Amino acid sequence: MKALVYTGTMQSEIRDMPLAEMQAGQVIIDVNHCGICGSDMHAWHGLDERRIPPLILGHEAIGIARSGKFAGQRVVVNPLMACGSCFACTHGDEHLCPSRELLGMRHAGAFAEQLIVKEDNLTAVSDNLSDANAALAEPLACAVNAVRLAEKHISDRQAGVVVLGGGAIGLLAAMVFSDLGYQDIHIAETNGLRREMIESLGNFRTYDPISGAPACERVDIVLDAVGSGRTRAAASAMVRAGGVISHIGLQDSEPGLDTRRITLQEIQFTGSYCYRKAEFAEAVRLLEAGIITGDGWVEVRDLDRGAQSFIDIHEGNAPPKIILDIKG
Amino acid sequence: MKALVYTGTMQSEIRDMPLAEMQAGQVIIDVNHCGICGSDMHAWHGLDERRIPPLILGHEAIGIARSGKFAGQRVVVNPLMACGSCFACTHGDEHLCPSRELLGMRHAGAFAEQLIVKEDNLTAVSDNLSDANAALAEPLACAVNAVRLAEKHISDRQAGVVVLGGGAIGLLAAMVFSDLGYQDIHIAETNGLRREMIESLGNFRTYDPISGAPACERVDIVLDAVGSGRTRAAASAMVRAGGVISHIGLQDSEPGLDTRRITLQEIQFTGSYCYRKAEFAEAVRLLEAGIITGDGWVEVRDLDRGAQSFIDIHEGNAPPKIILDIKG
Repeated sequence: MKALVYTGTMQSEIRDMPLAEMQAGQVIIDVNHCGICGSDMHAWHGLDERRIPPLILGHEAIGIARSGKFAGQRVVVNPLMACGSCFACTHGDEHLCPSRELLGMRHAGAFAEQLIVKEDNLTAVSDNLSDANAALAEPLACAVNAVRLAEKHISDRQAGVVVLGGGAIGLLAAMVFSDLGYQDIHIAETNGLRREMIESLGNFRTYDPISGAPACERVDIVLDAVGSGRTRAAASAMVRAGGVISHIGLQDSEPGLDTRRITLQEIQFTGSYCYRKAEFAEAVRLLEAGIITGDGWVEVRDLDRGAQSFIDIHEGNAPPKIILDIKG
Repeated sequence: MKALVYTGTMQSEIRDMPLAEMQAGQVIIDVNHCGICGSDMHAWHGLDERRIPPLILGHEAIGIARSGKFAGQRVVVNPLMACGSCFACTHGDEHLCPSRELLGMRHAGAFAEQLIVKEDNLTAVSDNLSDANAALAEPLACAVNAVRLAEKHISDRQAGVVVLGGGAIGLLAAMVFSDLGYQDIHIAETNGLRREMIESLGNFRTYDPISGAPACERVDIVLDAVGSGRTRAAASAMVRAGGVISHIGLQDSEPGLDTRRITLQEIQFTGSYCYRKAEFAEAVRLLEAGIITGDGWVEVRDLDRGAQSFIDIHEGNAPPKIILDIKG
């Protein structure tokens, strides 16, 4: 099968790859679309020790099941695999399973014509949901989860919200806040192209964190979708006393978080990772209902442009999300 | 009046000091007892920029009101002063008021024969509560608050709890967990004298974090009552996925917190500062009911031994709490 293979630091290319052997409970998916995630970029930069080249990346997939109960149907893929029997799995937190695996990490991912995945990880979607929007289910589930964790502390819809990072996760989180009724939503984004794109959506105010600050009276919630020492420093400086920082970005592990201010001002700092089944289902619901779409900020490109797309994202010449059209 | 005055880094001495002028709503308290807090030690070490010598430290006070509605009665002092009208104050979080002040910080504290404080900050206590136990109200309120914040995330009484630091705050927090029904409570303490004292109380298992780890199957909750880079590193390494770190210590601002693990394992890191009125009232209730006492771990010393007591605590020759008997 044809696949985009991550071959080494900042390198990827189209190759003909064999399909892995199928295990019990698994089915083959003919992949329609798969989005490029920040974590794919992180791997491509050679910064993810869990993703060793050569590897087929990609875990934001929509395709058609070849067999099983979804045979012939369009399905979105939940790429998270868990053991099902540990403390986390039996307490509803399968995303925290110590044996968890993600497609495109040690198992072959979805930048390929075919993908092997357990049937349990599939959700059939309605015909009126486009492939491009369906491919947003996985990142949207991440965003739903990060917003849920923020709302465990502050669920006042009058709250001032600042999202750090206007990539797909940050923008989708802003959209989730907006759908919940939050109105004072600011997005920090250094890339002018992305700021313009986000402003045109209408619901959000953007600012350049290099030169400015959010025009926000009170920052109750910060959602850090970058996760660098710099953004943690910014988040812990701007959030109000008693506020919450929901931290989903994984850019680096540099110091920056002001633990003294977090303590003296009783700030909640919460890690956010992936999603539970409930958040994935909520993401599919939001997409099927047309409440959240990729209109105006997602670009679909042929798989053949995949290698160049990684370079374009690296160089800042890309919208918040590029989705690869695998079947062309 | 006679007072123990912090005069410079690692120095304090008995001096005759004038009483400040009284403002509207304030009363004079003849101080009976006042405990030495870790934050007094921090100031004495010259590490607290908010506490400038010469200064009367001390904010864990019990005494007798000279005037007002509590005239002649024994009262415990809530040393936290807030504006009463800001966002935090009007949302029940007076401890997060940006104008908050603490006795013994910029206002004269309670290592003195008299103390001036607002009547609103006083709670009358029953005769059967000893001065030594009453002086624990303030640190116990801090502990109640730190436990409350941990329990916002995990309130399963089967949880494994590790408290970092067997000083007064750590030990009181362990006692609060114990009273709530938690049974698997471990305390990390480097001082062998304190470990022995804590073990003799019966409800807690101690360990030396320099050489060991808690004998705990699953660490659901870590309460960091030290607040150093080292303890934050230990806390973020030992807490289970989905667990909570309640952070009340303020020893340093060094890096150590593993924000990557906190994110990938969806850990909650919550700052804890002082207490609201509800936690202070709960502390007084626990003391008056005899549920929590200083028996076996608190030492009362005359004010004249105050200067030496700071040195003894510094040198590790002290129990978790020394309370100064002011009236002698």
